[in-house]
Amino acid sequence: MTTEVKELSDIANKLRIHVLKAVATTRTGHPSSCSSIAEIISVLFFKVMKFFLHTPKDPANDRLILSKGHAAPILYAAWAEAGHFPVDKLTNLRTLYSDLEGNPTPKLDFIDVATGSVGQGLPVAVGMAYVGKKIDTHATYRVFCIVGDGECSEGVVWSALNFASYYKLDNLCIIVDVNRLGETGQTALGANIEAYKNRFEAFDYNVCIVDGHNVEELIQCFDNVSKVKEKPSVMLAKTVKGKHFAPSEDSEGWHGKVLELDTDKCIKNLEAMITTKTFTVKPQSAPRRMPREVKYHVQLSAPPDYIDNRKYATNLACANGLVKIVQSHEKVYVFDTDVSDITFSRKVNNYDTSRFVQCFSSEEAAVGIAIGANCRERTIPFISTCGALLTKAFDAIRMGAISKTDINICASHCGITVGEDGPVAMALEDLAMFRAIPGCTIFYPSDAVSTERAVELAANTKGITYIRTSCYKVPVIYNNDKLFRTGEAHILRNHPADKLLVICGGVTLHEVLEAEMQLSNDGLHIRVMDIFTVKPIDREGILKNAEDIGGSILTVEDHYAEGGLGEAVLAAVADRNIVVHVIAVPKIPRSGTSKELLDYFGISASNIVMTIKEMFGANY
Amino acid sequence: MTTEVKELSDIANKLRIHVLKAVATTRTGHPSSCSSIAEIISVLFFKVMKFFLHTPKDPANDRLILSKGHAAPILYAAWAEAGHFPVDKLTNLRTLYSDLEGNPTPKLDFIDVATGSVGQGLPVAVGMAYVGKKIDTHATYRVFCIVGDGECSEGVVWSALNFASYYKLDNLCIIVDVNRLGETGQTALGANIEAYKNRFEAFDYNVCIVDGHNVEELIQCFDNVSKVKEKPSVMLAKTVKGKHFAPSEDSEGWHGKVLELDTDKCIKNLEAMITTKTFTVKPQSAPRRMPREVKYHVQLSAPPDYIDNRKYATNLACANGLVKIVQSHEKVYVFDTDVSDITFSRKVNNYDTSRFVQCFSSEEAAVGIAIGANCRERTIPFISTCGALLTKAFDAIRMGAISKTDINICASHCGITVGEDGPVAMALEDLAMFRAIPGCTIFYPSDAVSTERAVELAANTKGITYIRTSCYKVPVIYNNDKLFRTGEAHILRNHPADKLLVICGGVTLHEVLEAEMQLSNDGLHIRVMDIFTVKPIDREGILKNAEDIGGSILTVEDHYAEGGLGEAVLAAVADRNIVVHVIAVPKIPRSGTSKELLDYFGISASNIVMTIKEMFGANY
Repeated sequence: MTTEVKELSDIANKLRIHVLKAVATTRTGHPSSCSSIAEIISVLFFKVMKFFLHTPKDPANDRLILSKGHAAPILYAAWAEAGHFPVDKLTNLRTLYSDLEGNPTPKLDFIDVATGSVGQGLPVAVGMAYVGKKIDTHATYRVFCIVGDGECSEGVVWSALNFASYYKLDNLCIIVDVNRLGETGQTALGANIEAYKNRFEAFDYNVCIVDGHNVEELIQCFDNVSKVKEKPSVMLAKTVKGKHFAPSEDSEGWHGKVLELDTDKCIKNLEAMITTKTFTVKPQSAPRRMPREVKYHVQLSAPPDYIDNRKYATNLACANGLVKIVQSHEKVYVFDTDVSDITFSRKVNNYDTSRFVQCFSSEEAAVGIAIGANCRERTIPFISTCGALLTKAFDAIRMGAISKTDINICASHCGITVGEDGPVAMALEDLAMFRAIPGCTIFYPSDAVSTERAVELAANTKGITYIRTSCYKVPVIYNNDKLFRTGEAHILRNHPADKLLVICGGVTLHEVLEAEMQLSNDGLHIRVMDIFTVKPIDREGILKNAEDIGGSILTVEDHYAEGGLGEAVLAAVADRNIVVHVIAVPKIPRSGTSKELLDYFGISASNIVMTIKEMFGANY
Repeated sequence: MTTEVKELSDIANKLRIHVLKAVATTRTGHPSSCSSIAEIISVLFFKVMKFFLHTPKDPANDRLILSKGHAAPILYAAWAEAGHFPVDKLTNLRTLYSDLEGNPTPKLDFIDVATGSVGQGLPVAVGMAYVGKKIDTHATYRVFCIVGDGECSEGVVWSALNFASYYKLDNLCIIVDVNRLGETGQTALGANIEAYKNRFEAFDYNVCIVDGHNVEELIQCFDNVSKVKEKPSVMLAKTVKGKHFAPSEDSEGWHGKVLELDTDKCIKNLEAMITTKTFTVKPQSAPRRMPREVKYHVQLSAPPDYIDNRKYATNLACANGLVKIVQSHEKVYVFDTDVSDITFSRKVNNYDTSRFVQCFSSEEAAVGIAIGANCRERTIPFISTCGALLTKAFDAIRMGAISKTDINICASHCGITVGEDGPVAMALEDLAMFRAIPGCTIFYPSDAVSTERAVELAANTKGITYIRTSCYKVPVIYNNDKLFRTGEAHILRNHPADKLLVICGGVTLHEVLEAEMQLSNDGLHIRVMDIFTVKPIDREGILKNAEDIGGSILTVEDHYAEGGLGEAVLAAVADRNIVVHVIAVPKIPRSGTSKELLDYFGISASNIVMTIKEMFGANY
C-alpha cells in the first residue's frame, strides 16, 4: 500500500469518527449511510476533485452533488477535514442555529442545491454536466454525483440518465453506493451488482464496478472514468452500510439510527486503525479560476408588437417573449419536454438550436436539469411545457425552492379552454401548487402584451417564477408600451357607481369584460381588476378598490377553487370586513369546445352576469 | 395469408377509417398516433384478449390499459367495431355531451382508469397485474398495456417496470408502440429498437420485437408471450406513425393534427384495401365469470385502546389503525415505499406479509399501482409513506381523481415537527395539494384515537382520501369510544365569554390547548375547534361557533399558509362578515428539535398566546 492510499484510507476513518461525534449531538441522523461512502468521499476530496477549497462556488470547480442527502454529515466532515471550516463546528450538526442541517441546503457556501428527496439530486447534477459540456465549452470542470442504491427505484433517476447519455455528457461521473439496504430492508436489486451493470449499460453508460471501501480500486476507477469520451460514467461501488459501525454493519433496522452506547467503542476502533501521523494528501485546486458572471438585467429584444383587439393565445405570446429574451441575453436557455409544437417554444429552437434544450417527456427531470443549469448562475433557464404535466414536477419544484434556485417555468394549456383533449390535459391545480412554493412569483397574464412582459419580468426575478398561459385566443387589451410590475394589478373598468370589485386573470378577464358590458347596459357597474400576478398579490390595490366600492369582491378563475386566485384574494383581505364570492371550476371537466366549457363549467360571461345579478337582486 | 390474418388486417383498416371519420367531427385529435397501433388493437380485440364484450368490467376479463391515452379514438373504434356500442356514435368524439372524450376516462363502462398523462398508465396496469398474480390467485386474466415510445423518457415508467419484474408478473404484457416520433420530433431513442431491447432486458423483461403492422407476427408474438413464466413481457412493435394516413405517415409536425382535406382520399384508399365481405373473427369470452365483490363496510378489529393523556405520535396510531382494518377486512392492502420503519407500517408487514406491498422508493409508481389494485374493486388500497414525498405523486393522484379511484393515502412526517431532518423531509404543502384534488377527503387528526378512526372512515369513503399524520408525540385527548364523522369538527374548549374561535388540527391543536389554558388564566377565553377533516370542512360548525363568539376566527396550522387550513376556513366563511387571522409556517424551515421549531416558526403555544393578546389588546 502506498503512503497516499494509506492516508486516504485513514482520512476515510477520520471522517467516520467525525460523523459519529456529530450525530451524537442531537442523537438523530443516518450514520450508517455515511459510513458506506467514507472512502468514496475521501478519494474524491483528497485525490480526484479539482476545486478551490476556499471559494467553493467558483464556476471552475468540479461539482459534487450528494443525491443521498441524508448522508450529509460525512459531506460536512470532508469539507471541514479539508480545511474549509473548523472541524469542531461539526458537532453543531442538526441544531437550530447551525447551517449544518440534516440534509444539505445552500445556506452552506459549499452546497449548490438542497438534496435528500429521493432521486432529485441526479437530474441537478445532469443539468450541471450539460452546462459544462455544451455551454461552458472551454471549462474543464467535472460533475460527480453520489446516488444511493435505494434511489434507483425512483423514476426521475432513469429520466435523468436517459438525458445524460443522449447528450453524451462525458464530464459526468455517477457513483452508486450499492450498500444493499434501503430504509426498511433490502432494495429491489439488493447486492446484485451485475443487475445494476446491465441496467446502466443499457442506458448507454460506461460502467465500472469497484469495491467502495478499497481506496486503490477507487483511485484506479476514477482515473479510468476520466478518460472515457462521449459517454457518461457510472461507478458501481460495492459497499457495506454501517461499515466499521458495528453493530449496524450490513444490518437491517439501522437506517437513520444512531449507535448510542456503541459510539465510543467504534470511535476507539477507528482511531486504532488510523496510523498516519502527518497527512500529505490535500485537495487539488482547479486549473484556473472562472469569473462568476452576474448580469441579470434581461430585456425583450423589441417591445411587444400586437394589433389592438386582435386575438392571440397567451402561450404563443409567451413563446414570442422567450425568443426575444433569448435574442437579447446570452444566458437565457429554454428547456422543452417534447411539447414545443403546442407550446410554440419551437420558435426558440428555430431561432437558435443551441439555446433550446430538448429534455424529452419528463417534467420532473426537466425541472431538476434546469435547476442544475442555473447553479452558479451559469444560465437563466426557462422551462416551457404544459401546465397539467407540471404536477409531475412538484417535488423537484419544492426542492428548487429549498435550493434557492432562480428558474422560470412557463405553462401552456392551463384551464378548461384546453377543450377537446379533456380534463387530463387541463391544468386546474397549478395555482394551488405554485402558491404553496415559498418565494414563488406567479404571473397570470391576460393578453399577449402582458404575457411578453411577464416573461421579461420573470427573467429578472429571483426565486422560482411561474407564468400561466393558455392555448385559447383572446384579444389584445393593453397598449404595446404598457408598463407592468410584479405585484401590481390593473383596473380596466372603473365607474363612480361601481358596486362590486371583480378580480380575474387570463382567459376569465375577457369573460368579465364581456359581462361588464352587458351589466353596465343594465345600469349595474362593476370594477374590473386584472390581477397580473397572483403571488405576490396586489393587496393594497385590492383593499383600496374593495373599500372604494363598498367591500364586495367577486373573483373569477379558470382553476379549481382550492388554492387558486379566489383563495389568494381571500387571504389578502382576511382581516377586513370584506365579503368575497368565488367563481371557479366546480368539478372535474370534460371534453368540449373551449367556448362550451367556459359556459358549462360556470366561468363564461353569461354565468358571471347571472351570478352578479343574483348577488344584487333588484338593488341596482 | 390465412383468412383470419386477412380479416384482422382488414379490421385494422376499418378502425383507421372509424378514426378518420371520428376526428373529422371536431377537427381535433391525434389520428397519426391511432394509426400506428391499428393492427395491435385489432389483434388484441379480435384474437388475443379474453373478455365479456357486454360486461367489460367483469373481473374475469383481460385488461387493456391504453397508456398513450391520446390514441383514444382507435380504442373507442375497437369497442364499437366489436359490438359493444353502435359504430355511428363514434362521430360524437370529443363533443360536450358524449363520453367519448379526447382521452379515455371511466365515464365509459369499458375504461378502468383515465389515461393520457404521459407514463401514468403503466403503473396502473402493473397494479392490476400484481392483483391478478398475487391476490386473485385463481384468476386467469391477463393485463395488456400499450405504451407510447415517447412515454419511455418518463421516469415512472421505469419505476413501474422495476416493480413488475421484481414481482415476476408474467400476466403482464406491455406493448411499446415504437413509431419513432414524439410530439415535436424524434424521441430519444428514435427507431433504435435494439436500444429499447437492451433497456427492457436489463430490467428483466422477456422481450420480443415485432413489425407492429404485421398481423401474423403480432399473433405469433402474443402467443409466445402468453407462455413465458416468471417474467413480464414487452413487445417492441416497430410501427409507422400515421400509417396509411398520408401525408402524415412517418412525418414530423403531424402529432395531434387532423388530415383535413386528405381525409377522404385516405378513407377511399383504406376502403379499397378491405376485401373481406363477411367477418368471422370476433372477441373471445373469458373462460368464466367472476363475481364483483362489493363489501366496503370496514371496521377496526378492535376500538382504539390508548391511555388518556399519554403521548403517541399520530403516524404510529395510523399504523395501528392499518393493522386493525387489515385484520378485519380481507380486501385491505397496504402499499409502502420503503419507509415502513419510520411510518410504522412495517407493523402490517409483521402481522401479515401478504397484505403488505413493498413498492420501493417511488411514490408516483406506488400511487399508480394502488389505483390499478383498486380497479374493479379488487382491493381497498392504503398507501403509507412520508408526506413530503407525496409531492412526487401529484400527477398520479390528479389522474386518480379523474379515474374515480378509491385509494387512501396515509402521510407520516407532516409539518415542521419532523425536526432535525430539516425542510427537505417536512410536508408543508400537502394540504394545498390534496385540497386541489376534486372529491378528495382530507383527515387531519389530532391524537391517536381520532387517527385510528380516520383510518376506519377513510376505508369506507369513496374517492381519494388523505390522512395527515406526524411523527411528533402528542397526548391522547379523546375517549377511546369517541365517535368521529367526516366533515364534523369538535369543540374542545367552550366558555360563555369566548371571544375568539380558534380552529386547528394535528400537532397545533395541542399548542392551542396549552395557549387556551394560559389565556383563560388571564381571563381571556377562546373556543377551541379540532377540525378533524379539512375537506369537507365543517362549514356549519364553523359559522355557528364563529357567529356565537362575535365573528372572529384564528386558524393555526403546521403547513404553509397557501392552500392550507386557514384558506379552507377563509373559503368556508367567504361570504360572511367574519374576520380570519391565519397562523401558519411563514417560510422554509430549518433543522432543529420539534419543540424549538414550533416556537421559531411561530406556531407554538407561546406564539399563539402572543398573537391573541395582540389581537385583543387591553380589551378583555
